[in-house]
Amino acid sequence: MKRRDFVKGAALAAGAVALAACGQKEEQAAAPKDAAPAPAMPPAPAISKQMRELKMVTTWPKGFPGLGTGAQRLADSITAMTDGRITVKLFGGGELVPALESFDAVSNGTADMYHGADYYWQGKSKAFNFFTAVPFGLTANEMDAWLYYGGGQELWDELSAGFNVKPFAAGNTGVQMGGWFNKEMNTVEDYKGLKMRMPGLGGEVLRQIGGQSITLPGGEIFPSLQSGAIDATEWVGPWNDLAMGFYKVTKYYYYPGFHEPGSTLSCGVNAGVWNSLSAEDKAVVQFACAAENNRMFGEFNAKNGDSLDTLINEHGVQLRRQSDDILKAIGDASGDVMAAVAASDPLSQKIYDNFLSFRKKAMGWTSLSETAYTAARALDYKYGA
Amino acid sequence: MKRRDFVKGAALAAGAVALAACGQKEEQAAAPKDAAPAPAMPPAPAISKQMRELKMVTTWPKGFPGLGTGAQRLADSITAMTDGRITVKLFGGGELVPALESFDAVSNGTADMYHGADYYWQGKSKAFNFFTAVPFGLTANEMDAWLYYGGGQELWDELSAGFNVKPFAAGNTGVQMGGWFNKEMNTVEDYKGLKMRMPGLGGEVLRQIGGQSITLPGGEIFPSLQSGAIDATEWVGPWNDLAMGFYKVTKYYYYPGFHEPGSTLSCGVNAGVWNSLSAEDKAVVQFACAAENNRMFGEFNAKNGDSLDTLINEHGVQLRRQSDDILKAIGDASGDVMAAVAASDPLSQKIYDNFLSFRKKAMGWTSLSETAYTAARALDYKYGA
Repeated sequence: MKRRDFVKGAALAAGAVALAACGQKEEQAAAPKDAAPAPAMPPAPAISKQMRELKMVTTWPKGFPGLGTGAQRLADSITAMTDGRITVKLFGGGELVPALESFDAVSNGTADMYHGADYYWQGKSKAFNFFTAVPFGLTANEMDAWLYYGGGQELWDELSAGFNVKPFAAGNTGVQMGGWFNKEMNTVEDYKGLKMRMPGLGGEVLRQIGGQSITLPGGEIFPSLQSGAIDATEWVGPWNDLAMGFYKVTKYYYYPGFHEPGSTLSCGVNAGVWNSLSAEDKAVVQFACAAENNRMFGEFNAKNGDSLDTLINEHGVQLRRQSDDILKAIGDASGDVMAAVAASDPLSQKIYDNFLSFRKKAMGWTSLSETAYTAARALDYKYGA
Repeated sequence: MKRRDFVKGAALAAGAVALAACGQKEEQAAAPKDAAPAPAMPPAPAISKQMRELKMVTTWPKGFPGLGTGAQRLADSITAMTDGRITVKLFGGGELVPALESFDAVSNGTADMYHGADYYWQGKSKAFNFFTAVPFGLTANEMDAWLYYGGGQELWDELSAGFNVKPFAAGNTGVQMGGWFNKEMNTVEDYKGLKMRMPGLGGEVLRQIGGQSITLPGGEIFPSLQSGAIDATEWVGPWNDLAMGFYKVTKYYYYPGFHEPGSTLSCGVNAGVWNSLSAEDKAVVQFACAAENNRMFGEFNAKNGDSLDTLINEHGVQLRRQSDDILKAIGDASGDVMAAVAASDPLSQKIYDNFLSFRKKAMGWTSLSETAYTAARALDYKYGA
């Protein structure tokens, strides 16, 4: 396959996505289809107000832990802050439109807004990858810095405006795990022929180092690991991975993940709807998104900490760190993959140039702050013992 | 001085604070005293609405970069989201009440809300330290996880309710730098007799390893470094440190800081005012705080990255990492200092126990995610070259 075709078509096939929820028909079907989203607070009777309902479609099953619950919290927060002047009605993936048609639905006005991950739309422009996560790219904190104060939001606005959408950051999973492997991985040679469930740009990196990128919907991963049809899989992190039960069929849990170092979730609003909002309601939507951006990341970190503890201490999972040899090979391959993304169209190149420049400064600061501090804190000393 | 007295009185003396802004009279005076906060969007004429003004006092000079501007953004966001139904009028430190009396002013109803750092109130209970930052404590991401999903908010509510205040997280500086030193620090012996500007719990840790903790207001640090009256100082991070000009008088810039690994800023609302708000307005205040919590941290990270680049490439600042020997001694001393904080009253002990348990799981997850990923990303490979 030619490099320029590597992501062609893949992103928009059902289940061909790196984040967790799409393709999990069983969870989707289990959610009550017509249940209205419960407002966080009981609405007071509205007098002399113009009431309005906005339809929010999502790429997640309703109530999917972390992503679906975050989308619901976002919808409810807008309803609560406007006392129902705006009621946001949430539709799980497949309820109003298929999950991966959420963007088109908002673009053409079938829905008013979506909550999803913008790399799902990379079939329209590969540049959308930059606004979710890219291999060896920015962490959650760095994404926020780039979007709010590094020029990222303006570039995202430019990209999405071409599709009639106004985008906002509205959640983050944080660094995803490297994945579950049926053998120990010591050198890059161990990747030769490895069949691993890893879609998207991460999957292309995997192919470049000799592995086979397999695309599977969520529900088929566990049996495929169990039967040996695949040798390894990535999913999200300890919280969602524990629920999938991968620890039952493979014990090596590798870190760090390189493919999604801080996956930003997005809320996109139809441009006509956005422009029709009052300044007050625009502020409500904007700050609701920023609040959920903060809140969801907090939830992932708290639940990942609990679940990691469970995986290690109750299920005997063996943690393994990817070797420097492997990580450097992945770094080189990631560089190649990102250069190809940049070369795909002029706007992708423009965004890549800005991203690269920001990434360099962000890496300088992060290495002295978060990395150096957390490494120091992990040294051996007496604290609370 | 007995250990149990080590913070007594210090926190509430003007300038005796680890964060930047207090005591900078010159910046305070430069801000126009009667300038009304500019609403983010022009208010539309309000019809049949109950209008209300809330007074927000702050511990920062108006417009102080990062902290003061963040407080203003928070005030303006509430005004914007309510279309002026609530107008939040911001007062810089010293305008309505002295900066460090902000908490008392909100507690007794002189003001309606404050934006500040809760460790300033440790003279009332040492437990307030946990809700800003403590030596070798939680990072910004971990603080959010603890507050939102680890029981932290409930404990904070319990602590502040005793003073008639409802608290929210509303900003973060991220990991602060270790500080500026006039000599290289190789072993813990180099701290013996070192005169360093470092107030609060960090200063107590410094004393435990043999240094002298000096308390100076912001405006006196530069001349004291220049004259040799002090050997070293901490301040905040590259962005605020660059503005202070410390690079002109000392070239060694040490990392990581141990004393404030993710300083949470807080918005406290008078309990009576909070209870008087409608469900809608409570939601607005709550989500405005979470949004600013996200936004300010993004601003610090972006500006710290830019400023670090300037310090190194334009001013020739020499970066140095604290040695493992020093960091372990600091870790032990931090453990002792935190045990003393816990022993100061029963609620401090209860909060400490919860904090310690959360810290353990957070350290496990952070080491596999943020630390391991950012360390891997810093390896030598080709990416965008």
